[in-house]
Amino acid sequence: MSTHYVCTLVFRVSLLSCLLRPTTALAADVAKSPHGPDDELGVLNTLTTAQSVAVLQRVSSGKVYDLSVEYFVGMPGLADLGMGDPPYHIWMTHTPSGIKVEKLSPAGGPPDLALYDDAVTMSTHSGTHFDSLNHIGYGDRIFNGFEATRYLGNKGWTKAGADKIPPLITRGILLDVPATKGVTMLPDAYEVTTADIQQTLSKQGVRLQPGDAVLIRTGRMTVWPDAKKFVPNEPGITRDSAAWLIDHGAVLLGADTMGVEKFPMAKESVHAYAFAERGVCLLELAWLEDLAKDKVYEFAFIAAPLKLRGATGAPTRPLALPLRPATPAAPKAADQ
Amino acid sequence: MSTHYVCTLVFRVSLLSCLLRPTTALAADVAKSPHGPDDELGVLNTLTTAQSVAVLQRVSSGKVYDLSVEYFVGMPGLADLGMGDPPYHIWMTHTPSGIKVEKLSPAGGPPDLALYDDAVTMSTHSGTHFDSLNHIGYGDRIFNGFEATRYLGNKGWTKAGADKIPPLITRGILLDVPATKGVTMLPDAYEVTTADIQQTLSKQGVRLQPGDAVLIRTGRMTVWPDAKKFVPNEPGITRDSAAWLIDHGAVLLGADTMGVEKFPMAKESVHAYAFAERGVCLLELAWLEDLAKDKVYEFAFIAAPLKLRGATGAPTRPLALPLRPATPAAPKAADQ
Amino acid sequence: MSTHYVCTLVFRVSLLSCLLRPTTALAADVAKSPHGPDDELGVLNTLTTAQSVAVLQRVSSGKVYDLSVEYFVGMPGLADLGMGDPPYHIWMTHTPSGIKVEKLSPAGGPPDLALYDDAVTMSTHSGTHFDSLNHIGYGDRIFNGFEATRYLGNKGWTKAGADKIPPLITRGILLDVPATKGVTMLPDAYEVTTADIQQTLSKQGVRLQPGDAVLIRTGRMTVWPDAKKFVPNEPGITRDSAAWLIDHGAVLLGADTMGVEKFPMAKESVHAYAFAERGVCLLELAWLEDLAKDKVYEFAFIAAPLKLRGATGAPTRPLALPLRPATPAAPKAADQ
Amino acid sequence: MSTHYVCTLVFRVSLLSCLLRPTTALAADVAKSPHGPDDELGVLNTLTTAQSVAVLQRVSSGKVYDLSVEYFVGMPGLADLGMGDPPYHIWMTHTPSGIKVEKLSPAGGPPDLALYDDAVTMSTHSGTHFDSLNHIGYGDRIFNGFEATRYLGNKGWTKAGADKIPPLITRGILLDVPATKGVTMLPDAYEVTTADIQQTLSKQGVRLQPGDAVLIRTGRMTVWPDAKKFVPNEPGITRDSAAWLIDHGAVLLGADTMGVEKFPMAKESVHAYAFAERGVCLLELAWLEDLAKDKVYEFAFIAAPLKLRGATGAPTRPLALPLRPATPAAPKAADQ
Repeated sequence: MSTHYVCTLVFRVSLLSCLLRPTTALAADVAKSPHGPDDELGVLNTLTTAQSVAVLQRVSSGKVYDLSVEYFVGMPGLADLGMGDPPYHIWMTHTPSGIKVEKLSPAGGPPDLALYDDAVTMSTHSGTHFDSLNHIGYGDRIFNGFEATRYLGNKGWTKAGADKIPPLITRGILLDVPATKGVTMLPDAYEVTTADIQQTLSKQGVRLQPGDAVLIRTGRMTVWPDAKKFVPNEPGITRDSAAWLIDHGAVLLGADTMGVEKFPMAKESVHAYAFAERGVCLLELAWLEDLAKDKVYEFAFIAAPLKLRGATGAPTRPLALPLRPATPAAPKAADQ
Repeated sequence: MSTHYVCTLVFRVSLLSCLLRPTTALAADVAKSPHGPDDELGVLNTLTTAQSVAVLQRVSSGKVYDLSVEYFVGMPGLADLGMGDPPYHIWMTHTPSGIKVEKLSPAGGPPDLALYDDAVTMSTHSGTHFDSLNHIGYGDRIFNGFEATRYLGNKGWTKAGADKIPPLITRGILLDVPATKGVTMLPDAYEVTTADIQQTLSKQGVRLQPGDAVLIRTGRMTVWPDAKKFVPNEPGITRDSAAWLIDHGAVLLGADTMGVEKFPMAKESVHAYAFAERGVCLLELAWLEDLAKDKVYEFAFIAAPLKLRGATGAPTRPLALPLRPATPAAPKAADQ
Repeated sequence: MSTHYVCTLVFRVSLLSCLLRPTTALAADVAKSPHGPDDELGVLNTLTTAQSVAVLQRVSSGKVYDLSVEYFVGMPGLADLGMGDPPYHIWMTHTPSGIKVEKLSPAGGPPDLALYDDAVTMSTHSGTHFDSLNHIGYGDRIFNGFEATRYLGNKGWTKAGADKIPPLITRGILLDVPATKGVTMLPDAYEVTTADIQQTLSKQGVRLQPGDAVLIRTGRMTVWPDAKKFVPNEPGITRDSAAWLIDHGAVLLGADTMGVEKFPMAKESVHAYAFAERGVCLLELAWLEDLAKDKVYEFAFIAAPLKLRGATGAPTRPLALPLRPATPAAPKAADQ
Repeated sequence: MSTHYVCTLVFRVSLLSCLLRPTTALAADVAKSPHGPDDELGVLNTLTTAQSVAVLQRVSSGKVYDLSVEYFVGMPGLADLGMGDPPYHIWMTHTPSGIKVEKLSPAGGPPDLALYDDAVTMSTHSGTHFDSLNHIGYGDRIFNGFEATRYLGNKGWTKAGADKIPPLITRGILLDVPATKGVTMLPDAYEVTTADIQQTLSKQGVRLQPGDAVLIRTGRMTVWPDAKKFVPNEPGITRDSAAWLIDHGAVLLGADTMGVEKFPMAKESVHAYAFAERGVCLLELAWLEDLAKDKVYEFAFIAAPLKLRGATGAPTRPLALPLRPATPAAPKAADQ
């Protein structure tokens, strides 16, 4: 049922990979999009406006769940991985006292107008954010075969950046895996298997549909923002469970962790698989605690990343609104 | 009908203001919130979940209008005002070739995994963004009397920051003023008056309601992103027209300009008035061209700024979905 | 013999300090400069060109010791103190491949010209650097009574910034305290006393002179750049030993640590004392290992911080050149 | 007489260059260093400590000329070229009022200790700075054949960065070309020819020697810091005049402009030639006005760039001290 990408196993001919692996090795490769050689959206091409209307009309309480964390100096993030990414930083560019000393003239206003301005530096993968399809690829290529040599500038890619991700208004599904397992938080490096997911769906009484945004809760946010506890060895899905979710309709895979997948990454990386082989974006560092507490497993999911041109990721503040049960006329659930 | 703040004219006692103005001068002052001394939300306290449900259930086509501009190096912004704000900047923190040279080890994955990461610096008032209530005040105080001496840190305010702005799901109204005036774009420094707004509402057949997000189109985006044409002397609303809009139900004032109000600012600044006297946020640099082209004047408006803790502004990617006509049972329109 | 600043004990009248300390408390205060109310240089006013010539003419070997550490991502610094300072960061703004993708046109040159550019973010107190006199003061005032309310902008001070520090060419003295003590490195939080300094001078056969730049080695650089070992609880001088050094001619106090003084700071902070009471800058994170290894205790010291306008500190790359023994006609050593 | 690099004309085989130029084209290539395949210093290998001593002993007045401009928000720089480099920016990371609001605890000190800290962002080519040998090359290679594919990380090069440039203490020569020409400032895009240089040397009564740092004044600093006048179409030397200077002993070429060479660059770029073919660094944005005013044409030149690891450039604050005439025993001047 799922929208499948043409994904082939190919024999790598580059000298480098010949040196790095047995010459008989077969590797996964980036997918050609079924939506054409210029496609930068991937599976999000398949979302329809009918789906958006249908899900919004099922909104019941009007209660809005905010799925984003705050951004603040000291928040856990890529900087904690020791690879040299800058941490989140914010500073004041204007305060009334500074403006007075600098003899600046804000453009008009009353004499006692008091202006405050600030600025930030951050990784595009800070806080709750989308990963774009150009975040990770294989070798020199990303999703749909776009090559770094042709499309990677010093200010981001010219292909498949965060600016190309359309707004998502679709059904969202929370998979509260620790609730299924009877724990507060999944253990470090725990692999969320397909069986775990099926068990959770069953327990929650939910079936996946094409177009679902699937958010996997690991409970990791219960130790947020303690970077030492939060960052290393995250629990998460595997390539197998990611494949099962996408095959059953997921158009977005999200989690309450920095990486969605289990870390350290397995050889079969979920990131690379989702982006480069399936055309599926990830949503990371989502705040799922409120949904879980209220046992809201099905909701209207509304999200759109900042349109940072060419960026490999972008912050977002996704919203979730609980739904009333679907009527019999609702779209038929996917075969599971 | 509107939710009014207790806003008083007071005699300023500070020595500074005594020096700056005749001792008999009366000045506008920051408002005390009717929602209590700890209130940081302002008028957004008044939005109800019933309003959110009602508006979502009127969504008709499912077509989603994206009201955000892209973020890119060279985009117009505060940096063009010459007050020393940093321009938008993005750079690559990781590329596969760099990672190889630096002998970094991303946490696992296949040998040919290719990782791309980037980071940004920007003013919090970059691109499409909310202005928080702490952006501008009078003297040492902002909305609800919060004082800089008590609440302004080097990393933003501890009060009324962007992180405190709740998600907005409410009715949105586009006021296409240049269409009313029969021009492509309002002239430089044009004052959008109450009469202009009333004329536009009338022409569009729309009446304001409590809870509306009102977006004023000036046509300025027709010269975007030419900073020399876009930035100086923006057209926009005045304190009078802002007051009329808020009095008639607006809980958010937005525009397709950097400042919403006419620039240079009049002595009676809309920014200061909206934030400090009325508890109303602004939405700036909104992309309204698609709504205008399709004559979509009434829509579900969905927006939530990034939760940058304490920040005076925050980027957002607002969405608009056209509505079908309201049924007779719909909330009674405000008296205009 | 020393150049003394007019430094008075005053009764603080602010309500805050009344609450924080017994009302009978007397506190040290910022000094008025003997060089006048506009003076921003402090004790460096007293250096003469004759001293510079005299010391350069005693340069013997021409060997140049480089007293600066490198700047690199991950280097220890203020960011390690957990107060939210940004760490050192460097990135490429242009590479040939990026320029090609972005279709940029560097201004001319041959078709295969390959341009590489980079940019940095850092605290002004990164790596080997001067502390300016405006780095630390008491209450609202810094050295010479300059008040933050009048002179502190959002882009640094308009008084006593790094740009005001003149180039120093003077005699430098290394005090190798761990060599005196027979240890590799002084223990954590060790207080370098006046006795330690006198003992070291005696052991090294050196006497202080007016105009000396005095560099105190603690051995801390033997654990550089291990931030966990380097940063917490640095050994260093005390107010008493700082006073003795300044009284005996030191016009600059430097060390191979982040803070020169013992940390955590004593109530009588060396920083505040040196800047605000004596008009003496500090030199921090100096690389003294090569001088110590070669037992070079007396040298021509040449240093000038980057002229970062208004900044509280600025990087520098100081040099040291060994001297031959002074002739009998040399300036008479200070009385010790 | 000069230290020559083995510089060959080669036939480029890359497909790209075949497409870009006639297949019969011959191009300049990067040089192999005579100092070996690992050499990253270039011609600075040839400076001797004897030269440093000799020049310092000729220092006469002790007067120190500061050859650096200030760094400030709004200063002209690469950002003005429109290629997306970040402008210089400085901000406060700590102020006493902010620290109090944030409840931070600087490590100890008295209760009224007032701490001010700041941070900066800048291109490494901001203000007075060295260009490193890795700043510009040909094709994929820089000086001494170092290849970007092997040595270019995301945090700078691992070869020939600013950290590898040794301190320079040598004779400096000012060439006041506008004085020779009888103008205040050379015209836009003026080419400083070998004849201009010879005429200036003759008028000034100076002969070049091996080891000289040669600083070419164009008078451009007379319009500093007006970016519109300063930046476009700088006057400067040509490949021919650069070659003549290096052939006659120059180990550093500096100027009072952003690019030392005439802009727009000629096909035969001085940058590429100096770095990649001759192993000679550049010094840019030097402040030469004071030397010129005082007619100081010969001086001890002391400079060392910040050791920014791997960087393509680095700020510096060079110093110049006038010399007394050389004695007959002085090193023999180069044959010119």
